[in-house]
Amino acid sequence: MKDQKEPLSRRSFIKKSSLLAIGTGSLFTLPQLAYADNSTTTENDINIIGPKEGFSPHIGTLVSMMNWMRRVILMPVRGMSVKDLDYIHDGDSNSIGAMLLHLAATERFYQIHTFEGKRWGNWSKEDSKNWSVASRLGDQARKKIKGHDLDFYLEKLSEVRENTLTEFAKRDDDWLMAVDKSWPWGPTNNYCKWFHVCEHESNHNGQIKYIKSRLPGS
Amino acid sequence: MKDQKEPLSRRSFIKKSSLLAIGTGSLFTLPQLAYADNSTTTENDINIIGPKEGFSPHIGTLVSMMNWMRRVILMPVRGMSVKDLDYIHDGDSNSIGAMLLHLAATERFYQIHTFEGKRWGNWSKEDSKNWSVASRLGDQARKKIKGHDLDFYLEKLSEVRENTLTEFAKRDDDWLMAVDKSWPWGPTNNYCKWFHVCEHESNHNGQIKYIKSRLPGS
Repeated sequence: MKDQKEPLSRRSFIKKSSLLAIGTGSLFTLPQLAYADNSTTTENDINIIGPKEGFSPHIGTLVSMMNWMRRVILMPVRGMSVKDLDYIHDGDSNSIGAMLLHLAATERFYQIHTFEGKRWGNWSKEDSKNWSVASRLGDQARKKIKGHDLDFYLEKLSEVRENTLTEFAKRDDDWLMAVDKSWPWGPTNNYCKWFHVCEHESNHNGQIKYIKSRLPGS
Repeated sequence: MKDQKEPLSRRSFIKKSSLLAIGTGSLFTLPQLAYADNSTTTENDINIIGPKEGFSPHIGTLVSMMNWMRRVILMPVRGMSVKDLDYIHDGDSNSIGAMLLHLAATERFYQIHTFEGKRWGNWSKEDSKNWSVASRLGDQARKKIKGHDLDFYLEKLSEVRENTLTEFAKRDDDWLMAVDKSWPWGPTNNYCKWFHVCEHESNHNGQIKYIKSRLPGS
């Protein structure tokens, strides 16, 4: 969880923000950067998707995707102020802070559903109290999720992710491939549910970057 | 490629749009739907992520993710008019049509880079002519990408995806795991590059849904 817990150095962040432009449409920034910056090639294996030590092959591959995705979505919010995190762009927009908490809520609810086998929505009072507003987003989230600094959101995301990884390490690929025939999408395996948790971060990252580029004074 | 080529029936689409609400934050719509709609449970295996016939195990798993993701991102645009696809929400926003073409452009450029081994940006005149504006998005895309109906974008996405699947079928997991040490992110394998192509669709889907909910008259 190093990537979630230890903020990148400013230089590294600026560099990586540019590199991550590939994920925001500016694909043509790449060739120059490929020559301008070779230091990143000595980095860790965050960009190696595939089986990882401590997990079954397919679970480890999913973990590598979730780690990569988490790192990408934390790039745009690095260094954001409470004011930035609370900013509401229009009456129907969610704040960046609320979207970050929404991602932790989504992951927590999928934990309860897939690890504890509870029907969707069958949450404890504590989990409902902690996560339902962030999960729903919208008006209540605009009213209630505000005034927190970035570390508050990073810690929530990190706490929930730690539990995901702990539970993944206890399971095998048969569990990941197990199909839920009653899931409303149609027969859906745990791998699909957790891939959705992963890609859902990218979905909101697109919105976070849209709002970020429209922050007052940006 | 059935899912890309054959539009879902209107009833099916309406149903699935509701079900897909799980991917847009409305997680609490699920329990009711689980009972209200069992017909979807007899559907195909789109929601089964994992190895697929005709591909090596890890490539097939990636293909299952790309097929699932593509289906999800096409839900919000189903039935959109040229006016909707061309709508510019503010001076810096990309149209939904331009974002759809951008996703096809991104996939095409990753094909050239990973299948043909060309350095990023080293595209043929034809590929540059076809895809560079969509890849860059921004001002030029706002000026030049307009007036197309939804089928235009769906066909571009489908044509490019067909080629991806054809090339994937010729390759094995050793190719998918092969590491590019000169990639500016740092050492990056083909699996990571193609996972990025997949999650990038979700990134723009978040923006497409944001714009969609703000279309004039919506």
